[in-house]
Amino acid sequence: MATQQSPTVPTTHEEWLAVYGATPERDAEFITLSGEEIKPLYTAADVNDAPDHIGLPGAFPFTRGVYPSMYRGRLWTMRQFAGFGTAEETNERFHYLLNHGQTGLSTAFDMPSLMGHDSDHPMSLGEVGREGVAVDTLDDMEDLFAGIDLGEVSVSMTINAPAAIMMAFYVAAAERQGIPADRLAGTIQADILKEYIAQKEWCFPIDPAMRLMGDMVEWCTHNMPRWHPVSISGYHIREAGSTAQQELAFTLKDGLTYVEQAIDRGLDVDDFAPRLSFFFNAQIDFFEEIAKYRAARRIWARELRDTYGAKNPKSWLMRFHTQTAGVSLTAQQPLNNITRTAIEALAGVLGGTQSLHTNSYDEALALPTEEAVRIALRTQQIIAHETGVTSTIDPLGGSYFVESLTDEMEAAAYDYFRRIDELGGMVEAVKQNFCQREIADASYELQGRIDHGDRVVVGVNRYTEGDDAQTPILRIDPALERKQVDRVAAVRGRRDGTAVEAALSALKDAAARPEENLMPHLLDAARVHATEGEIIKALQAVFGSYTETPVF
Amino acid sequence: MATQQSPTVPTTHEEWLAVYGATPERDAEFITLSGEEIKPLYTAADVNDAPDHIGLPGAFPFTRGVYPSMYRGRLWTMRQFAGFGTAEETNERFHYLLNHGQTGLSTAFDMPSLMGHDSDHPMSLGEVGREGVAVDTLDDMEDLFAGIDLGEVSVSMTINAPAAIMMAFYVAAAERQGIPADRLAGTIQADILKEYIAQKEWCFPIDPAMRLMGDMVEWCTHNMPRWHPVSISGYHIREAGSTAQQELAFTLKDGLTYVEQAIDRGLDVDDFAPRLSFFFNAQIDFFEEIAKYRAARRIWARELRDTYGAKNPKSWLMRFHTQTAGVSLTAQQPLNNITRTAIEALAGVLGGTQSLHTNSYDEALALPTEEAVRIALRTQQIIAHETGVTSTIDPLGGSYFVESLTDEMEAAAYDYFRRIDELGGMVEAVKQNFCQREIADASYELQGRIDHGDRVVVGVNRYTEGDDAQTPILRIDPALERKQVDRVAAVRGRRDGTAVEAALSALKDAAARPEENLMPHLLDAARVHATEGEIIKALQAVFGSYTETPVF
Repeated sequence: MATQQSPTVPTTHEEWLAVYGATPERDAEFITLSGEEIKPLYTAADVNDAPDHIGLPGAFPFTRGVYPSMYRGRLWTMRQFAGFGTAEETNERFHYLLNHGQTGLSTAFDMPSLMGHDSDHPMSLGEVGREGVAVDTLDDMEDLFAGIDLGEVSVSMTINAPAAIMMAFYVAAAERQGIPADRLAGTIQADILKEYIAQKEWCFPIDPAMRLMGDMVEWCTHNMPRWHPVSISGYHIREAGSTAQQELAFTLKDGLTYVEQAIDRGLDVDDFAPRLSFFFNAQIDFFEEIAKYRAARRIWARELRDTYGAKNPKSWLMRFHTQTAGVSLTAQQPLNNITRTAIEALAGVLGGTQSLHTNSYDEALALPTEEAVRIALRTQQIIAHETGVTSTIDPLGGSYFVESLTDEMEAAAYDYFRRIDELGGMVEAVKQNFCQREIADASYELQGRIDHGDRVVVGVNRYTEGDDAQTPILRIDPALERKQVDRVAAVRGRRDGTAVEAALSALKDAAARPEENLMPHLLDAARVHATEGEIIKALQAVFGSYTETPVF
Repeated sequence: MATQQSPTVPTTHEEWLAVYGATPERDAEFITLSGEEIKPLYTAADVNDAPDHIGLPGAFPFTRGVYPSMYRGRLWTMRQFAGFGTAEETNERFHYLLNHGQTGLSTAFDMPSLMGHDSDHPMSLGEVGREGVAVDTLDDMEDLFAGIDLGEVSVSMTINAPAAIMMAFYVAAAERQGIPADRLAGTIQADILKEYIAQKEWCFPIDPAMRLMGDMVEWCTHNMPRWHPVSISGYHIREAGSTAQQELAFTLKDGLTYVEQAIDRGLDVDDFAPRLSFFFNAQIDFFEEIAKYRAARRIWARELRDTYGAKNPKSWLMRFHTQTAGVSLTAQQPLNNITRTAIEALAGVLGGTQSLHTNSYDEALALPTEEAVRIALRTQQIIAHETGVTSTIDPLGGSYFVESLTDEMEAAAYDYFRRIDELGGMVEAVKQNFCQREIADASYELQGRIDHGDRVVVGVNRYTEGDDAQTPILRIDPALERKQVDRVAAVRGRRDGTAVEAALSALKDAAARPEENLMPHLLDAARVHATEGEIIKALQAVFGSYTETPVF
């Protein structure tokens, strides 16, 4: 009385293929978030088993991680990006995070600071302290880190077009704490190419912006051995709607372009390459993200060693910060974002990240509340201490699927490198809108899949019942803007106006001399309390400003 | 001016070992949740590459999944366990879940129902409808599924000692909907051995309890081709504090014991084995859980085919339901439980589960609210539709670590099998408290690691700041208990008392004849509205009851 039919059980791969072919697939797209086809099954035949293709952790080509011991030696840095209101409010949040187990600080600046406008600039109205902290002068930078020993804590600053200016404010603030530049540890983003590619926060045309960035990298190379003067960022490229492949390719190519620039300035690649670092997105397609990080390490190591002749193994290491994907979060049913962030964070960890920011569940609604920030940090702590994934190095190494996907990701990046080289390199490709157009196309394609329901977003285009919209959100008090405008006015009132004039004038003269490094002049201007906006304006008087060519 | 020392970069495994040995490990335990040592690195050398050791999905030994197409063909069943109050309240929740995208029903019974007590039994006081639904008679079972077509929906019932009685209520309720038994699809837990091992909800001594269960399995085998009459459960073994290895070994050994019993009753193994199913825990140690599921499939297939001579490949398939670990959730900082549940659910999916219950974040506090239940279900939907992990079969297949851990898990299970066989088999081992003692030891050991802070539980023994305790919780209205007591009294008042007497008397007579199958008698008693408690008492008059020997 056999009540159920005996199924056909395959015993060879050919038989399995025949059985699979006869089995209906469910009605779904079997492609990654980035649109890459995924096969139903990967086996040993999909893995490149050439010696050293995968390799060992801490060993070329670093597929399995940049360090020999990875998280058995040290966990990643849990670094929550924070900033809002004036320096005073953010300083409080920094103290809160340090007291709750965070191991590094990460500074978000407000839109006016990112665009090079002072808080009392007409375009700053309504934006001061809204999405980050407002920093106009050295005084704000000092208040921001009050009570925090800058010789001890590692600090990350996310700012790009005005990065050299904020760097000058930071070094000057540390000087006033009695900490010399060579003791400062941390990172400044300063990745200007991706601004033109994706984030669109620029102050100058591309060429002088590249020069200003190069000046800072060079100065830091000589004066700040513990500082990472560029964090080459795919995060914003991805947030702008790129694929994982574009994020990988454009970011690494930006990095290689900075390497070429530094070499052209006469620096030895091994003097600065060890202090380059990267910043990637962790989107919701779990394995595609893991493959992206693994491929990035392999490409960077190969290019630095073989193309740019780096001899110091530290120059070969693609070390990276990860942030979970802001665009993957939904305003609908916000607690679902805890699930998304947990899975994205796990991908970052299984991909071997060196530091991690987990988004708060309410970020699609507003600035995160303290409770939401704490839960986001707890997500990292649970992954680190409860899940066991940190007990062994690269737990996914050898997975037929993951290794195959890593190879595909690598090949896709090299294909973009070739196309960019054909256009004359990254600066040219950006000027010709190549990257911008590729991202726009990818973004359009993904949005189409979502609009048609081919790609499901839970709570948005399916399972939409149960949106509560009662999440407590943090609102920035409008009085903070007034307070900050008063602060910058007060600084202007009490500083030595003649000294400011002189510093800005010297800066302009130096800007007009392409061979001169601007950092010492920026430091002079910072020390006499010139504002960010004043410094930007002085530079724009020489450099001009940038107008985007629209992408069609 | 090389500012940082060149690190030593290993190129061979020996060199890597030397470098690793010279690198300090962080201060942490590198063991799984279950206490198994984890090596810092796994490589191809750790993988058994014998042909067919790993194999193909849907192919012996089924390491990579029981079906050839797995989630490319069909997603797992999202089955949220639900039940509280009277049949009426739970029926409402069932309709809610079906309307929110759930694809199967899973019934939680209250403690009195699980223990075989009617709602008006003195020991039921305060427990009626508290942790599940109260079902005393056929009438309650009918109300529970009112408006739900039992010929269409698949239903799971979690009940053990009185499983045969609830099964009779269910079949009788379906009859009154006009649905014959052979159209009913679903599962009843009915796994009595694990009650003595771990859950401690028994009604009879072990031998008659095994007979009652055997009667039900045999009856279902002949009459309910779409029904899974046992769900062999490791879940409760694990919740009682066992290791993953114990959960795996004891559960599979329980299953093999039921197979032996059925064969001893003269059933053909291929007549009932295809309808056995399993129920495992998904604890927080991500890879250990995945390895557990993969090892379970391999062991079951080998034992059924080679030891018990099953010819139908369906008999070889270890199909399983998964529930995330209740004991891993914390009352402190309850939103952290969303992260835990997401990662546990992902392990279940990457382990190839056939159905999944995700716990609600507030379950450590109280019965879940509707909002928390919805978020738990959304967690499954995000994994299914957003993360891409369902696009390929067994994405972790080939991972050096996962394959090696799978082999270790398998070896640990066989080691327990040997020890249990030496005691005379599972029933004897349970009577001798062997399994109970092993679990108690493991639980004590883990608690010691937590108490000493060697094992971190976020929010409990580290990162304890920020406990809010303002989570809205669901409280069961005490009036529901009164209502249910009135319901059972009303049934007693309106039924045919003589018919009940006759049915119970016939049941007792049959119970005294070991060769007779009790199911037809249970059905007769159900149809005349005998209560669960009355039926249990009638059986206890013949079988006696059980007293536990304490574990020292």
